[in-house]
Amino acid sequence: MRLEVVNTGTELLLGQVVNTHVAYFGDQLLPLGIRIQRQSTIPDGDAIGELLKEVFPRTDVVLITGGLGPTSDDVTREVIAELLGRELRLDESLVEHIRKIFARYNRVMPESNARQAMVPDGAVVLDNPFGTAPGLYFPAEAGQHPHLFILPGPPRELKPMFQAEVLPRLKAMVEGTGRVTTFRNFRVIGVGESQLAEVLEPNLLEIGGMEIGYCARLGEVDVRVIGPTDRLDLAEALVRQHFPDQLINSDGRSLEETLVGLLTERKLWLATAESCTGGMIACKVTDVPGSSAVFRQGYVTYANEAKTELLGVPEAMLAEHGAVSEPVAQAMAEGALQRAGTDYAVAVTGIAGPGGGTPSKPVGTVYIAVACRNQETFVKRYQFAAERLGFKERTTRMAMELVRRRILGLDPNA
Amino acid sequence: MRLEVVNTGTELLLGQVVNTHVAYFGDQLLPLGIRIQRQSTIPDGDAIGELLKEVFPRTDVVLITGGLGPTSDDVTREVIAELLGRELRLDESLVEHIRKIFARYNRVMPESNARQAMVPDGAVVLDNPFGTAPGLYFPAEAGQHPHLFILPGPPRELKPMFQAEVLPRLKAMVEGTGRVTTFRNFRVIGVGESQLAEVLEPNLLEIGGMEIGYCARLGEVDVRVIGPTDRLDLAEALVRQHFPDQLINSDGRSLEETLVGLLTERKLWLATAESCTGGMIACKVTDVPGSSAVFRQGYVTYANEAKTELLGVPEAMLAEHGAVSEPVAQAMAEGALQRAGTDYAVAVTGIAGPGGGTPSKPVGTVYIAVACRNQETFVKRYQFAAERLGFKERTTRMAMELVRRRILGLDPNA
Repeated sequence: MRLEVVNTGTELLLGQVVNTHVAYFGDQLLPLGIRIQRQSTIPDGDAIGELLKEVFPRTDVVLITGGLGPTSDDVTREVIAELLGRELRLDESLVEHIRKIFARYNRVMPESNARQAMVPDGAVVLDNPFGTAPGLYFPAEAGQHPHLFILPGPPRELKPMFQAEVLPRLKAMVEGTGRVTTFRNFRVIGVGESQLAEVLEPNLLEIGGMEIGYCARLGEVDVRVIGPTDRLDLAEALVRQHFPDQLINSDGRSLEETLVGLLTERKLWLATAESCTGGMIACKVTDVPGSSAVFRQGYVTYANEAKTELLGVPEAMLAEHGAVSEPVAQAMAEGALQRAGTDYAVAVTGIAGPGGGTPSKPVGTVYIAVACRNQETFVKRYQFAAERLGFKERTTRMAMELVRRRILGLDPNA
Repeated sequence: MRLEVVNTGTELLLGQVVNTHVAYFGDQLLPLGIRIQRQSTIPDGDAIGELLKEVFPRTDVVLITGGLGPTSDDVTREVIAELLGRELRLDESLVEHIRKIFARYNRVMPESNARQAMVPDGAVVLDNPFGTAPGLYFPAEAGQHPHLFILPGPPRELKPMFQAEVLPRLKAMVEGTGRVTTFRNFRVIGVGESQLAEVLEPNLLEIGGMEIGYCARLGEVDVRVIGPTDRLDLAEALVRQHFPDQLINSDGRSLEETLVGLLTERKLWLATAESCTGGMIACKVTDVPGSSAVFRQGYVTYANEAKTELLGVPEAMLAEHGAVSEPVAQAMAEGALQRAGTDYAVAVTGIAGPGGGTPSKPVGTVYIAVACRNQETFVKRYQFAAERLGFKERTTRMAMELVRRRILGLDPNA
């Protein structure tokens, strides 16, 4: 099945917004064995008409995003209706839906929003529970046009619509062809991409019959293999053999989901004590639905006084060793464990930059401590080369990972 | 000047890597008055040849990224040389450069890397101080092809090369035409995109001579106008007149940068008390370099006990009104203000979902409170329709915005 993506949006070409749709679609389509053959971005306005004329003859499905809003630069609906020679008609039930969304916020629907309820003849309306712009689906017409899915630009509206309305339809089309692709994603933390490839690649090539891909994010690498199930099993055994402590899962769950799952399963409570990450660890943990069963409280102790007042870190210790030090990290974790009365506590203290570095503790230095009942507190120093936000993210990830390893009795130094 | 971007890279279409090149180029080109007219992504391999044949007749400049690496799927150099009918010749000084890069890591250059030193006749070599793949520039030849810039895929190699080798050449081309474009971005919080457009659009159209665009994110809308400076001033006056309380800036800074800037300027301290956002407000505030001058500590009080212990919220109040209630939000903010000894404190308590909603307090309900010295605590209930992470983000944004408005004495209800 040939599929192309067409993104409309002047903001995508002006540098204001990074286009995340393509990676999202690619990720979602891969398990169906569908590859994006080409992706194009054009500004808001009429340009989409010309582009679609080029795209139609060379593909089976087009995913179109953006231009369904209420403002004058949103013309996707109208341009496509004209291109396909369809009349636009007002769908009263959609007007009602949009009116209700405004009413929910005690607002009256502006007249300009009524345009979003205009539906071209023959189009299937795709429900948008998170916004006023419904999506549209035009089933393919031989010799005329391929399958067209038109989706709203905002990711929070696009993603649920893609899941509920687009994916099942594509699945049905693919299943019709009898072609199914299986893949597995090994998520590994604490090993570099090249080291991972150096160890795994010769062995994976020996197993053979798989496509192998790597994707490195801050402090985390995904090894993705596509192929028949029996090969995937061999690949998984291989990864488990070489990286038993670092493989966090092969089912696509994030580290925070994995950690919260583990804590829930074992009925354990976690507390956080954060300096340089400024609340990011607590935020990631509470991103997971159901995290209230494992997380009651967290401390963001950015200043020294806060470390003393909220976590009981001795002032003398701060004066002697500095806030970014092994004893302070340990005292923070143990203070949080004791005061929050949890089973585990994780603490971080480091230098996010751009300022604050010294020769012995340059920007990127961080101490992470994990305290737990009945075990010695573990503290480790890391040096993360990344700008401020990347540093916060890497530290957050490694902090969660160290808790996971402590719970499972794995080597935290691996 | 017409410009297109062509990105090659299978990983961009498989969901593993988000394409950040386009936003980077757009951002860099805007001050030169150059718009990206179209952007296309294709997989590694031969597809680039076909695509460029389409692109050549309709544009003046093409920026091409990727496919300059040493592996078998990197063929951009060869395909373009063939397309333009140029011979490839080995550049010995480039071989030397690549050898040196390997030597820096105590490694011997693999033979496959010598391919990167092959230069097509008539191409200008673009220096790559951060990697082994040099870039290439083919000046336009009338009737044959537009200006072609071929750049390496990794951002840390692409960006310095773009700055040093591409931008100055494009600048020289543009200056020849005497055309300069200015733009301004009005960031507005707490007003819907359609309401904003309804009020602004007729007036902006009356001023005339500008291009207008909107970009809505969770709880925040950017209104972007492009045109001569005198029109931009009129547009800004208009936005200030109609949305004096909701316009946060016109200089592109984020809300957190704006808020931290304001607190710093006025030497004010802020504390956070978070339930449903789980630390996200503290995390956003501390994303800003220098935030340690305004932020000492934050409380993540996810459970009721934590609200009582850390913030002094009375148990009886929690039992009577529930954790998601006006009095609890107020008590959290006032507790944080008092215990942290700050000038301002912001508290949030709400239902992020997917579970936990009730008929009177459905998922998406949140109370935000801002406490400050010498002023009554302000509390407001919001209903945000978004999934868990979107809800956290919207709540975080509105919480920071309410602090900004309280500091500036603006209407928090606007």
